[in-house]
Amino acid sequence: MKICRFDDDRLGVVEGDSVRDVTAALDVLPLHRYPLPTVDPLIANLAQVADEIRRIAPSAPLRPLADVRLLSPVANPGKVVAAPVNYKKHLEEARAQVEVHHNNQVAEIQKIGLFLKATSSIVSPAAGVELQHLDRRNDHEAELAVIIGKTGRNITQAQAFDYVAGYAVGLDMTARGPEERSLRKSIDSFTVLGPWMVTADEVADPSNIDFWLTVNGQPRQKANTKDLILGIAELIEFASSFYTLHPGDILLTGTPEGVGPVLPGDTIDCAFDGVGQIRVAVRAADGATGVAATTPETAGKKETA
Amino acid sequence: MKICRFDDDRLGVVEGDSVRDVTAALDVLPLHRYPLPTVDPLIANLAQVADEIRRIAPSAPLRPLADVRLLSPVANPGKVVAAPVNYKKHLEEARAQVEVHHNNQVAEIQKIGLFLKATSSIVSPAAGVELQHLDRRNDHEAELAVIIGKTGRNITQAQAFDYVAGYAVGLDMTARGPEERSLRKSIDSFTVLGPWMVTADEVADPSNIDFWLTVNGQPRQKANTKDLILGIAELIEFASSFYTLHPGDILLTGTPEGVGPVLPGDTIDCAFDGVGQIRVAVRAADGATGVAATTPETAGKKETA
Repeated sequence: MKICRFDDDRLGVVEGDSVRDVTAALDVLPLHRYPLPTVDPLIANLAQVADEIRRIAPSAPLRPLADVRLLSPVANPGKVVAAPVNYKKHLEEARAQVEVHHNNQVAEIQKIGLFLKATSSIVSPAAGVELQHLDRRNDHEAELAVIIGKTGRNITQAQAFDYVAGYAVGLDMTARGPEERSLRKSIDSFTVLGPWMVTADEVADPSNIDFWLTVNGQPRQKANTKDLILGIAELIEFASSFYTLHPGDILLTGTPEGVGPVLPGDTIDCAFDGVGQIRVAVRAADGATGVAATTPETAGKKETA
Repeated sequence: MKICRFDDDRLGVVEGDSVRDVTAALDVLPLHRYPLPTVDPLIANLAQVADEIRRIAPSAPLRPLADVRLLSPVANPGKVVAAPVNYKKHLEEARAQVEVHHNNQVAEIQKIGLFLKATSSIVSPAAGVELQHLDRRNDHEAELAVIIGKTGRNITQAQAFDYVAGYAVGLDMTARGPEERSLRKSIDSFTVLGPWMVTADEVADPSNIDFWLTVNGQPRQKANTKDLILGIAELIEFASSFYTLHPGDILLTGTPEGVGPVLPGDTIDCAFDGVGQIRVAVRAADGATGVAATTPETAGKKETA
């Protein structure tokens, strides 16, 4: 099932090029005043909501996908966990560009571990990416996003996929600079999730998904999730050995080689086979600092010189 | 006003050694089903809730503070932003202990920037701290916690205190190791907030607060917030130049010199003048890995040797 959110917080289920408006299925969720649950209510109650969707979908209004504005598929993630340098060729690429990485540690993921991104950085593809620091290099990173479905701590690799609700396409946008990743990657709009959540039962093998990313139609990244250094199950085991994973938590699995800069005016396209395809416009943020480079080749030159 | 949460999600206002049960004041908050707001509803509506508290407090039931179990004063923070090495003497101390810091960068905060802690790591003092990695050194860090009250981006230092709802005592617990701070400091229970939120109007000068921390009664940390390298206003300006701050977001302002290890069985006491005092028991987590050191002197020896 491809579950989407669209327009004014409506719930949809995608059927080919159309979307069924199944917002009424949300009525199975409980009401809250305070405190709010610290999990995503839709993901935490996915089985009940999916049952209700199946019940009402046949008679639900059908609209062309092209006529709706898709929102981030997860509304209330508790945390966004992300994997640094988790494709071997990207690790080699990063180590060859010490100046871009400000002499930060570019070590194996087993040593650096995982980092957090602010949930306030999440946007839908339609919202677009806003560059805040035009005097820095701002890079695209295509990543498979895993949506956690169940609360768990110290999850073993063997159990890991029981804790997955579904998958989405993710962009882990990154401003280069000397600071820790959890700051540079948490700028508003720097976590793109879309176009929808594909439930886990519809993804035959998440560890063998072809994906690609282009900027203005030019190929930049092209890889397969089978080339992950730490696979999905290992990432879940590793993350949950530090903290409890909750329904709605997002796990960005890392990006492959081909990471490169984007500039205001650029268009990013990105697709993961069997998951979905997104288009994301890049612009300068209101109140952005610095002056944008004029070409990708000069992006960040001033800063890394 | 000292606003606390206690027992089964009740709301209280502290009067000396007593607490008024003003849970009914929460009725002014709206109901939500899905999506949930991405701000803390109590903090976002603090003025209305405070008005209602004032209205009902005189006739609200009064209970001894000693008879209630206090909860974390902020139930739904969107993010926990924390400042590394933000007291000069702590920076000197950290640089003198390269092996403890795994040769990680120990640079000025202006270079490292801020980091994130998982909101899932938040507990009340009464819940206590659970050590997950007994083969690592696990340190206490006493910090003034600033609770953001208003949504803001690119906030100037001059405006910064308009965005503060209140203050609390914070412990930024830390497992030493090679990984980035956002992982090592996000272990479940590693962010302690308490005992309550003191609203900003009751803190005469947050930039001049004496505070101290002891372990088993032995002095460990003693400092004043006037010794912060980046003060509260500068931290808010810096953070909001990267991401939007939202009501309920927590800003941990950094810890002074005297950071040291704790072991299962230890008791941490910590107080900030005019804010409050907390007591926190340390124990091993269920499923903890490694074997605990027997004395603070040997804590982490195995790992840093």
